[in-house]
Formats: sequence, C-alpha cells, structure tokens
Amino acid sequence: MYPIRILNLEQTEEVLEMKTVIKDIEEVYAMKSRGAGKLFPLVFHEFEPGVADMDIKSGLLEDAGIFGLKLVSWFSGNAEKGMPLLTGTVMVFDITTGKPLGLLSAEHLTGMRTGAAGAIGAKHLARKGSENLLMVGAGHQATYQVAASLIALDNIRKVRVYDPLLSDNTVSFAARIKSVLMGSFLSKYDPGSEDYETVAKKFDVAFEAVSDIKSAVENSDVIITATPAHKPIVSNEWVREGTHFSCIGADMSGKQEIDERIFSRARVFVDDIVQAVNVGECEIPVKKGMIAKDSIIGEIGDLICGSKEGRLSERDITIFDSTGIALQDLMVANRALKSAEEKNIGSVVEL
Amino acid sequence: MYPIRILNLEQTEEVLEMKTVIKDIEEVYAMKSRGAGKLFPLVFHEFEPGVADMDIKSGLLEDAGIFGLKLVSWFSGNAEKGMPLLTGTVMVFDITTGKPLGLLSAEHLTGMRTGAAGAIGAKHLARKGSENLLMVGAGHQATYQVAASLIALDNIRKVRVYDPLLSDNTVSFAARIKSVLMGSFLSKYDPGSEDYETVAKKFDVAFEAVSDIKSAVENSDVIITATPAHKPIVSNEWVREGTHFSCIGADMSGKQEIDERIFSRARVFVDDIVQAVNVGECEIPVKKGMIAKDSIIGEIGDLICGSKEGRLSERDITIFDSTGIALQDLMVANRALKSAEEKNIGSVVEL
Repeated sequence: MYPIRILNLEQTEEVLEMKTVIKDIEEVYAMKSRGAGKLFPLVFHEFEPGVADMDIKSGLLEDAGIFGLKLVSWFSGNAEKGMPLLTGTVMVFDITTGKPLGLLSAEHLTGMRTGAAGAIGAKHLARKGSENLLMVGAGHQATYQVAASLIALDNIRKVRVYDPLLSDNTVSFAARIKSVLMGSFLSKYDPGSEDYETVAKKFDVAFEAVSDIKSAVENSDVIITATPAHKPIVSNEWVREGTHFSCIGADMSGKQEIDERIFSRARVFVDDIVQAVNVGECEIPVKKGMIAKDSIIGEIGDLICGSKEGRLSERDITIFDSTGIALQDLMVANRALKSAEEKNIGSVVEL
Repeated sequence: MYPIRILNLEQTEEVLEMKTVIKDIEEVYAMKSRGAGKLFPLVFHEFEPGVADMDIKSGLLEDAGIFGLKLVSWFSGNAEKGMPLLTGTVMVFDITTGKPLGLLSAEHLTGMRTGAAGAIGAKHLARKGSENLLMVGAGHQATYQVAASLIALDNIRKVRVYDPLLSDNTVSFAARIKSVLMGSFLSKYDPGSEDYETVAKKFDVAFEAVSDIKSAVENSDVIITATPAHKPIVSNEWVREGTHFSCIGADMSGKQEIDERIFSRARVFVDDIVQAVNVGECEIPVKKGMIAKDSIIGEIGDLICGSKEGRLSERDITIFDSTGIALQDLMVANRALKSAEEKNIGSVVEL
C-alpha cells in the first residue's frame, strides 16, 4: 500500500496561486514542444447526445515526473438537482513507479490553468506596452482570465468586459471583479511580500462593462474570448492592426468566437495543433479555407522555446487558440499536491 | 463537494466474496450482450518498450448505474525497489450525475473478476458432471481460478496443477491451496450458514501437482490456462473430445497458451470479440486461419442471455477466451463499494 493525497475544491483553492500556475503552464507548453510532454488519445462518450457526456484526457509530463488523467463529465440533468453540470477529477501518477500520487477535484485547477493559458498567449504575442484588455464573456472563466492576464502583462490600465448573452451579468461582473481578484487571487500572497505588492499594483486597473462590442474591439490591444459561442462575436472589420486574441472558448467541434476572416490576417499559434484544428477556434477558419493548417505558425511551446517566431511587427494581428490539454491539468494538479504536502492540507489515504 | 469512498487492497479483500462476484460477472456479460454495457476505446502507452507501460480501460454499465475506468501500470524497475511491478486503480462514477463514487486498489478485484471469468466459461460450456479440473499455471491468478471454478461447478473431485516454468512452485501450490481457499475464500461466509456449508463442501477435493502435462490434459474435463506463455503449452493431439478450455492468460498480442489447431475442432466463445481477436487466445488461430473470426460462435454474454447456443453435445470441445474487460472491474468495484458502505469499511473523503 502507498499513501495518496486527496484534494477537494476548497483545498485546491487554498494551495494554488496564479503567478506560479502561469510559470507552470509556460513550462508545460515548453515540455510539449521539447517532446517531454505527450498527450494520449482522447476517450469521449455521449451517454445521450446533448444531455450527458464524459471525456477522459490523459498524458505524461516527463520532466515533471508524472502521468495521469482528467475525467470530465457533463450532465445537464444535474441542473434540476441543484448540482453542477460539470464534474472533473484529476489523477496524478508517478512516472518512475506507476503509483498513484493524488486525486483532485478538477474544477478550480481547470479554471487556473485555463486562465494562465489565455494570459500566456497574450504575454508572448501581444504588443509590449498593451494597455487595453477586452474580456469577451463574463462567466465563471472570465475571472481567471482577467486575474492571469493582469499578472502576466505589465501595462494593462483598463479592462473592458463584454458578454454577448448576459448584459446585467456584465455590469455586475465589472462591479465586483476587483474584490474577487483581491479575495481569491491577491490573498494567496503574504501582505507586505514582493509578490503581494506586485500583484496588488497589477490588479489596480479600471474595469468597465461595455455593450458596444465594435467600439470595444477597436480600442483594445488584447482581446480574450471565453464564451460557449457557436457564431462569431467579433467581426473582422472591427479589428485593427496590432491586436492580439487569446481564444479560449472553442473546445468542441462547431464552436467559434471570432470571425474566421481574422485568421487570414493573423499569425496564429495553438496549444496543440491536432486538437486546435479539430475542435478549437482554428476549426472553422481551416474548414472554410481562411487559413491552411500548414499556415498555423506553430504551438505556443515552440514560441516559448524559441524555435518559432511570434509577433514580427507592431502591426501584426496575433491569435493564440487554446483548446486546453490534459498536460496543463496534470502540471497544476501536481503543483497543488506538492504545495498541499508542504502545508499539510488535504486527506492522505493508504491505497 | 460530495463524499467518495476509498478502498485499498486489504479493504477490497475484506468486502468481496467469490459467489457474488461470479453472479456479478455473469450479469456483466449479459449486460454487454444486451447493449447495456459498453466499452470505451483503450488508451495504451509504452513509456519504454519492455520496461514500463500503462493502459486506461473504461466503459459503462447502464443497468448498474455506473461508468468508470481502470488504470493499470507496469514498471519492471519496481522489482529492484521491492515494489509490485503492476499497479492498478479503479474509479467508479454515477451514471446519473457524473459524480465520482469511489477509488479502489484494483489488484484483488482484478484477481476476483478474472477468476470468476474462467469459472463462468466452465460453468456454461463444460460438460455437466465434469469431475477433473486441470489448472495450467500456478501463479497469483491460479488461486482465484481454482476458488471460482470449484464454486461455479458442482462435481469437481480432483484438481491437477501444472506449471510450465515453476515445478517446485507447483508442488507447493498444490500443498497449500486448500488452506488458502479456506483462509481467503471460505472465511468470507459465516460458519454454519448455507453458503459456508456449500462452499466448504465444494472446496473438499483432491489437489495434485503434476509434471506430465500430456497425461493431465488427457484426463481432464475442464482445463483453465492462466500463464504468461507466448507458445502453446497444450498440444492438440492430447485433447480428447468433450474437453472445455477457459483461456485466461492471453491479453496482449503474441500471447498463446493452447495449440491453435484446437480452435478448428472447438466451439469458441469470447468475452469481447474485438479484443479476443486482437490480443486474446483467438489472435494466433485467426491469424493462422485455424478459425475465421466469423466462426467464433459469440460472446459469452450471448450464451448467458440465450441468444447463442453453447455446447451441443458431450463430444464438443469448447473454448472460452477471456481477455478481461473494464466492465468486469467496474462491476466488482461497485459491489465492493456497496458492501464497504454497509460494513462501514474504507475511507470516506469529501471531494
């Protein structure tokens, strides 16, 4: 028998902080580019189409010494039971012995790693000195995106928030985001520490709910989209030169957040080329011939490792299509386990 | 958050008993035949060929209300660390909500469900009144096979044990098997209960270690093979009419325990047709043309459900090729969780 650590939602919230997660996710992308991170084939099953499904994403991170899986299920019938529709669980295993190391609730760590992904796209592709961030989508994921982007970028002064569906929600999101950032993200650092001071300063920006998406796009340097949209929300005509997009929402065939014509004007990076073309924001543009698969510059890890060039000029439009890969979950889960061990958090059970 | 139950090796040993596992595995095969049990695609990864690998087997059991997975890893380097080479973990999820129900050490339940499989093949295909059982292989799995077969069959009087590699081991196996059956299997029933009396009677047979495999085959009604062999141990010439085989060992391409020519004389059933032809005892006979894939009579579940006929005469040779499917693990894991809940065994953690 051997001990495994189990972390529930609250415990993962307690042990993870965004600065480290951003570094970890950059490292994941780099490992994948170096061949030290590998994805295994996806298992997907629809119990009833449009009603309930589940997938198992798995892979290995050689340099982190782990392999494992995330199982995510979606049961629409949970709504009437007052339960979350999505349930996610991550299992981490030791790559030198095959022994399980831990079992974690995936909800918060998925939020963290996805926020980090959008921010890393912006960090490596947006114009230096970018001041205006547009957050498209004011749902659960938007908080993570805003937190991570403010931490990863140095010069943001204003965050506009737009949501195609929920205008009231957008206003309330903009009104409460600062206190959420303080309570859920800044609070992870010791007051007075350098991290605390840096992050506090970065969170000190203006937030505005907007209803005029055209004007917001025209006035933004960095645009992050995190919606469940199946039709473009951002039109090609509104997009000025120099804009960066981190497209987060598309993770299933048929989803699309931005006008496919933008792709023919842009330098495009993805997290995983196969997944991006199959189910990501790249799917529709590739199918419609707006961009050839071969014209995608590369995976973001290639950029981080220096084997591909990102932005070439201030006038480039850049896109990072993040579909989300299991390696992100495994890395952040492993970080949570290590941090929990140090802090003696979670349940340790002999398996 | 929601509670999940965690059962380690010892706890799964405590809560499972073979009579119920046999019934459960019969029900699993029947569910699969009815379309109420489905296998998802296998994920397999070799970290280093011949040194370390892992697989994820998953599926659903509609009528049991569960889905889930088993992850099994094999790390040869564990030997020098004094750790088991194989590590298995099962996760069970609720098919109505997607919530995890439990996490279990897979070792004992894999032994139990595999033993039940071999016995079910014999129960449904061997001649009624079969008295002589030959166990080929005296390893870890042999105990489970013997226990399950004695429980599932009504007239066994003698169990011969042969092992192609380990002749000393065979003698010691035959010497201690009765006390192992008493200690690990009979002890699950209350002394004085009907189950106890029935099982005690069934375990009261003669055990003999044999070195002459030819003579043993010639004198056996039921032959169970559970070895890691890559070459036939049982020759076609030795096999008399009426013999039943439950072939358990072959679960990877290239493995083979019995002469492929036996297949051209036999009525053949499998647990899963695709898996049996790809990695089971059927692989070589199909590849060598001894039997066409279409000549395999069916899956064992079809026989249990009555949609296919098993043995047609006392002279038929019958074969059940059991490769092992995730649905067996899920069913037994679910049984262990329910039994553990009743008995308040295991750790319950909020996930």
